[in-house]
Parts: sequence; C-alpha cells; structure tokens
Amino acid sequence: MAEEQKRGLEGAVIADTRLSRVMGDVGRLVYCGYEISDLADNATYEEVVFLLWNQRLPSAAELEALRKTLFSHMALSEAEIDVMRRLPVKAHPMGILRTAVSTVGVFDPEAEDNSPEANQRKALRLTAKMPTIIAAWSRIRTGKELLQPRADFSLAENFLYMLNGKPGSKPEVDALNAYLVLLADHGMNASTFTSRVVTSTDGDMYSAITAAIGSLKGPKHGGANEAAMRMFFEIGKPENVEKWFKDEVKGKGRRIMGVGHRVYKAFDPRADVLKRQVDKLGPGAKENPVFLIATGLEKQVMADPYFVERKLFPNVDYYSSIVLDAIGVDTDLQTPLFAMSRIAGWSAQVMEQWTDNRLIRPLDNYIGPMDLKWVPVNQRG
Amino acid sequence: MAEEQKRGLEGAVIADTRLSRVMGDVGRLVYCGYEISDLADNATYEEVVFLLWNQRLPSAAELEALRKTLFSHMALSEAEIDVMRRLPVKAHPMGILRTAVSTVGVFDPEAEDNSPEANQRKALRLTAKMPTIIAAWSRIRTGKELLQPRADFSLAENFLYMLNGKPGSKPEVDALNAYLVLLADHGMNASTFTSRVVTSTDGDMYSAITAAIGSLKGPKHGGANEAAMRMFFEIGKPENVEKWFKDEVKGKGRRIMGVGHRVYKAFDPRADVLKRQVDKLGPGAKENPVFLIATGLEKQVMADPYFVERKLFPNVDYYSSIVLDAIGVDTDLQTPLFAMSRIAGWSAQVMEQWTDNRLIRPLDNYIGPMDLKWVPVNQRG
Repeated sequence: MAEEQKRGLEGAVIADTRLSRVMGDVGRLVYCGYEISDLADNATYEEVVFLLWNQRLPSAAELEALRKTLFSHMALSEAEIDVMRRLPVKAHPMGILRTAVSTVGVFDPEAEDNSPEANQRKALRLTAKMPTIIAAWSRIRTGKELLQPRADFSLAENFLYMLNGKPGSKPEVDALNAYLVLLADHGMNASTFTSRVVTSTDGDMYSAITAAIGSLKGPKHGGANEAAMRMFFEIGKPENVEKWFKDEVKGKGRRIMGVGHRVYKAFDPRADVLKRQVDKLGPGAKENPVFLIATGLEKQVMADPYFVERKLFPNVDYYSSIVLDAIGVDTDLQTPLFAMSRIAGWSAQVMEQWTDNRLIRPLDNYIGPMDLKWVPVNQRG
Repeated sequence: MAEEQKRGLEGAVIADTRLSRVMGDVGRLVYCGYEISDLADNATYEEVVFLLWNQRLPSAAELEALRKTLFSHMALSEAEIDVMRRLPVKAHPMGILRTAVSTVGVFDPEAEDNSPEANQRKALRLTAKMPTIIAAWSRIRTGKELLQPRADFSLAENFLYMLNGKPGSKPEVDALNAYLVLLADHGMNASTFTSRVVTSTDGDMYSAITAAIGSLKGPKHGGANEAAMRMFFEIGKPENVEKWFKDEVKGKGRRIMGVGHRVYKAFDPRADVLKRQVDKLGPGAKENPVFLIATGLEKQVMADPYFVERKLFPNVDYYSSIVLDAIGVDTDLQTPLFAMSRIAGWSAQVMEQWTDNRLIRPLDNYIGPMDLKWVPVNQRG
C-alpha cells in the first residue's frame, strides 16, 4: 500500500456517485444529469428530492404522492417538541438542530433497521421534519405558539407558514424553493463525507445525519453564509463599502467572506441564480441596505485585479444570506436552512454508500517517542 | 493532483500524531511512548487521560488535581437530566448517549469557543460527564433513583457506584480501570477519524464528539463487542461450543464475532490483558458460562489451521464483553462503555487536529448521465 500524507485528502477519490457533479473549472453543477440552473428555474424542491433519491425525475402522480407523504411526516410528536422546549434558547441553532435530529432518531422505532426500505422511509421522515424543527425552534425561542403544517402546502410553503405564522408570498416561496433546490447536493463536501464515514461503520441513518449537521455547522463549511451576513452588517451602509474595501481588504488584507471557493475557479453557478431571485423579490429586497452593500462590494471585487486574476468571485454563501434575510430568516437560522436543503443530498449519499459499503479508515503517522519506561507516580520528578 | 480511488482510504495517511501507535504486525499498542500492557497493569484511567492530553505522565499532585477536577464536573444539571428522562426507554443506549452529549453541548456556554483553553475545559467536562450519563440512563430506564458522584472516588469507582448504587469491589474497580485504560485511544480508527473530519470544518468539540459516538455505534466498529456477547449467548452452554463451531463456523462459514482485526495480524495485546482481568475477578467470573464459552471457543479457533494460518485471533471486543458482563454492565451498555473510555482519545485527537487544522475534503467520481434536457412534469411519460 502506498502511503502518502494528505492532510486534507486532496485528490483522494473515495466513491463513485450518480448524484451530483461539481465542475469547478467551468462553473457548472449537475444533479443526476440535469444542469443546476434548469433545476433552479423549473423544479420544485420535492422534484429535486425525488431526483436525488431515484436518479430520475418523477411523473406528476409520483410527485404529488411524494409531496403528500412528506406532509404526512412533517409534524413533530408531542414528546419530541417537549424535549426541544427544554433546550436553552441562547444555544446555537445548529446545536439545537443536531440535538433535535438525534432526538427524533431515538424516538424512531426503525432507527436500528438499516435495510434499504427502512433507510428510504427514514430519509423521508428526516426531510419532512427538518423544516418543522427549524420553524418550531424559531418560535419556541421567541415564545410564540407552534403551528401545524398544512396539507395543501409544498415543503417550502409549509416552512414559511410554520416560521412566520402566515403563508409566504409567491416571490418568497419561489425564492426559498430556488434556494432549497440549489443547496440540495454538492459532491463530496465535508458534511456529506462525514455522513459517509459514519455509514461506513454500518452506522445508522440518524447517526450519519446528526454527524453531518455537526460538520456543516463549522465556519469553514455551512457556517460561511452566516459569516458573510455578519460582514455585511459590519459594513453597515452602502456608502461605506468603498472605504471598507480599501481599508479592511486592500489595507489590512482581510478576507471577504463568501468570495472564492475551493472547487469553483469560475463563477459559482448557484450565486448567479440567487442574485436573480433577489430581483424577483421586488423593491423591498432590492432596496434592502444589505443587498446594496453586497452588490456594491461585488463591484469592488470584480474591478480589482487581485480578485480577477485569482478568479475569486462571490459564491453561493455570499448571496444565499441575502435571499434568506429577505424572506425573514434570522441570520443564525441560515445554516439550519442549509441543512434543511442538504438533507436531500445527505440522505441520498447515505443510501448510495450502503449499496457498496466499506469501512473508511485511513492511517496516521506516529511521531512521538517510543519505548519509554513506566515510572510509578511517587517516583516521578 | 493524483487521483486514485480508495473507497476505504486504505493506506492514506491523514495526520502526524503524538498520541498512539498501533503496530498491528507485532501486536503492540503504544500511548505516547508507553506500552499498553505497562499502562493496563500500572496506570489509573486518570493517568492515561493526563498522558493523552499532555503527552507525558502527571506528577502525584497533577494527578490528584485532575481527579478532583473531573469529579467537580461529573454531575449533570437538573436541566440535562430532565431532557434524558423524556427519551424513550427502548431506544439504543448509543442513540441516547449521542443525544445526551449533544444536549450537554447546547447547555455549555463555551460550546462555540474553539480556543485551546476552552477545548481543554470541554474535554474535561465531557470525560467527567460520560460515566454519569451512562449510569443515569441505566437507572432511568429501570426506574431507579439517580445517584450523585462521590468526591473521594476515582472515575471508575464513581461509575460503578452510580450504576449499581453501591461501591464496586476492588477486583471490579481494577477490571473496569484496566478496560478504560486499554480502550482510550487506537490510532486513526473510524470514530476518531469522524471527529477529525468534523473538526476540520472548524467544527466545535461537541459536534465532533457527538459525531464520533454515532460512528462508534456502528456494528463494524464499537458495536462489535455487543455482537460477540450475543454470539456467546446464542451458543448458550460451554458444552455446545464444539458442535456450534463445527456446524456454524466450519459448516456454514459463519464469521466469529471478535476474532481477527483489520490492523492486528498478531495477538491483540488488549485481549491478553482483559483475559487476565477475568482471572482476577475470581471464581464467579471464571465459572460464568459466558467466560467458559469464550475460552472454549478460543481453544477451537487456536487449534484450527484456517484461523492459525490467517492469524485470526480473539481481539479486544472478544474479551471486553466478558469483563464488562462480569462487573454488571448490561450487554447494550457495553458500546457506551467503549465511548466512556475513548472520550480521552477522541478529545486528545480533536485538540491535536486543531493545532494544524485543514479542511478534510476528498473527491468523488461522477458516473451518472450528463446533459439531460429538462422536461416539464406534465410532459413526462
């Protein structure tokens, strides 16, 4: 066996996949053969969920059946809500989501059944309950009453309804739907890889998804959209952009959050779609200072030789926080929204890992001392 | 970048480490320079915790300070216990442990502080609370009152006391202590690797440990000791061993749980120590049918050319279930006990990962279709 040190596993290919293809050099992202921009413009999130789970688009009847089944699993049990109500309101919502998903797992009588059929049912239940958990937490921590999902609503509609207590407008639902479509899968990113490592021990679906949530929580991964939003808040006003860019970025060498991507060396195709969604959200969103700050800063970046030469463009995190802010999602709930979309990809990847499972177990290189002699504690210096 | 497919990451070296060295070809395991058999014969678990966290043995004063600090963090808060009481008694105890550790994380005001100092404090709190969580769960699910830890006890003593409601005998405490020492770290195993992948996103300690628990839960990893125990129960009586081995193993080609190891191609040094511990536990343990079944089956294995030629010997999982059974740990609590020991290694590895952190993000190989044309749902066949 060749041993080569790769701290970030750079270039190591760990699986064949039929789910998504990230073509970073040309700025393309494909789910099961379909271009991401086609999906974001045309597909509902439910269609993408079906696509990732079945590697084909659903018929009209299959799509409606999936929507109904998702609705039927959306509500949380009283016991699950009861646990959530006992968690501290100041905690990071990603810690809450991690705990709530783990809790849903211990309540699921099928938790220990790793058959393909049970895994498909658990994927359904997790995809259905994720919006309910996030909306419930938003209302629990602000002392509001919880709402039940509505049978006639799509997943995006139900989330906005359960979050805000009233149905979202059509542009809001469309923007959220596009966001959910765009973030649903993305190759072997760190949280997806985490879910596959857990699965590789013959680990159960809930353990894999709980682990993936903890991984997505990290600021180098899903936490980046929150970091972009906090940067926009720091800039404060559109008229501050030029000076902030000059002082902080050019002067102090500060990194711009949400600009540049480890894989994309062209424009992130998802950022483009999200920017268009802000346009569709109307004057309120377009005149939002945060959007004006973001577009203003983008102009500075795109006109600066340093960024242009290195192909450092705004990525999905840069504009997703703007879209989520415009539809009323608190900054610290934005990474949970990422998880609410990505559950489609995580669960699909876990099921794919099960079709050809093998323990993922790399090596390390011991560089400490050897052959030390034991000395009893009372004889140590 | 060279791309080579390695589904199990065979031979990939992902980190330098000063923590443990697994020398599978010669049956040696070393923690920070000390031989595992020396540690199991002489060290307390607290000494090994200090060793893994500091890469040196403690002075007498440092050791007593660590024991006291661990004691001071051992008790769970009322709020944490309240959450645990609401979890279903039939759930897998590893699912409970995963949920409880995640819950402790959301209650910790330092959860989001990833500084080395905060990480060291969180490692302490997790190591201290793990025995309390497991003992509490054992009593909650059987309707017994919970017990507070005692200031004069070691971690092993406190666990047995909080589990059984009375102090353990000296042989019981010694056996548990040896078990905890033996399982505390083991190179880049799957759960440790999981904790490092989560950390690589700049993920927090609780997310990393929650993920590691989910990984250890898998039957191909920590779940193996439980599987060995269930096999002994299935055999039922010592006099059934020979026929079971002939019918099931030689006849039907069934795998013997707890025999053979992916890394050890010599006798697992930990199995040897554990077998000696059973001897020390006295007649009750040595005459336990389960122990007689295990030693009887080992004799069959060691006399069979198939196993001898392939160097398939009983590993740590084979005898750890016997030791844990002898000191009163239910079969389904044995993987949680593994986690209660391994928290020392996980937390040490997480802290080591932070000293030289880099996103762990491998690649996949897309083998699905490309350039499919979007067809609206009402036009699909």
